[in-house]
Amino acid sequence: MKQGENYQNISLALVHHPVLGKRGEIIGSAITNLDLHDIARTAKTYGINEYYIITPYADQQELVKEIIEHWQKGHGSMANPARRAAFSLVRLAKTLEEVTATIAAGHSRPPMLVTTSAKFQNKTVTFSNARKRIAAGEPTLLVFGTAHGLAPEITESADYTLPAIEGRTDYNHLSVRSAVAIICDRLLGDWN
Amino acid sequence: MKQGENYQNISLALVHHPVLGKRGEIIGSAITNLDLHDIARTAKTYGINEYYIITPYADQQELVKEIIEHWQKGHGSMANPARRAAFSLVRLAKTLEEVTATIAAGHSRPPMLVTTSAKFQNKTVTFSNARKRIAAGEPTLLVFGTAHGLAPEITESADYTLPAIEGRTDYNHLSVRSAVAIICDRLLGDWN
Repeated sequence: MKQGENYQNISLALVHHPVLGKRGEIIGSAITNLDLHDIARTAKTYGINEYYIITPYADQQELVKEIIEHWQKGHGSMANPARRAAFSLVRLAKTLEEVTATIAAGHSRPPMLVTTSAKFQNKTVTFSNARKRIAAGEPTLLVFGTAHGLAPEITESADYTLPAIEGRTDYNHLSVRSAVAIICDRLLGDWN
Repeated sequence: MKQGENYQNISLALVHHPVLGKRGEIIGSAITNLDLHDIARTAKTYGINEYYIITPYADQQELVKEIIEHWQKGHGSMANPARRAAFSLVRLAKTLEEVTATIAAGHSRPPMLVTTSAKFQNKTVTFSNARKRIAAGEPTLLVFGTAHGLAPEITESADYTLPAIEGRTDYNHLSVRSAVAIICDRLLGDWN
């Protein structure tokens, strides 16, 4: 963290189950390799504590472990130290509850659960408001969904939700990798 | 474009040659499928005119054509209309000169050539300054590099350069997909 920056205590989670399918049904999505890389690199850039990959599936967990191992201890760690640094933030979890419990154990209280969505949701606060809360040191877990977004059971359990990202158009189909980058910059970025 | 927004006239280019390799040598990089998808989706979100993929290699051009064709006319276009809309912005070019000539022909003057970099460069203006110039309608071509960044011959030919993205740390290894998302939001985004 740069000198003079406010304290921040923020983690990210990327949910692969339960998420929404094309027709609004609950599904589990597959791991995408570049979701691990791109979001870990963004997380490292913005000084985020940990980046949790959430999947309940044993085979998908194995895949994540292999990717982490390659970049943390294997050939990748020697070939690309910057990537190793990013992957040092990546954690694996079976459920969102497991992640909040882990964070609560480390900080004596559970984090504020903050969900993101490409659609309007209840309990939405502005980015500026969320930015202030984070800058004040409120432990925060930012939750992103894969596929067609987080299942209602997750969104409804949130302490608050961030607005959908609007560009200059009505097109709201950013990749989750791009959405994470933009939201981290809005909540934590500093530029003129 | 939303009602009441300022006029904007901005295109993106992703350069695969000439770019820098690991040791600072000039190389040509390979096409990455998700660079096409993620950046096209970001471009569509922020109301960008066109997204140019620049590669001089015939086999790589064929690959790009096949991907565009799949999402514009093939199975992908029916399965995912939102992706088709994003891919409608994607263009293929052999060189950056070809892109500036194409834009100049359409707008009676060449665009401002604006380069991006993860490192300090000469001729850097602030994001706020660039934002004002774009909002005033100045035709602008935002140029991003793959691999280890744009070759000096491109950076030196720029009208101006944007600052490197700084998060809360000294880590400056964002993916180009994330960097494009953040820079589009800084230059064109509108949020509170």
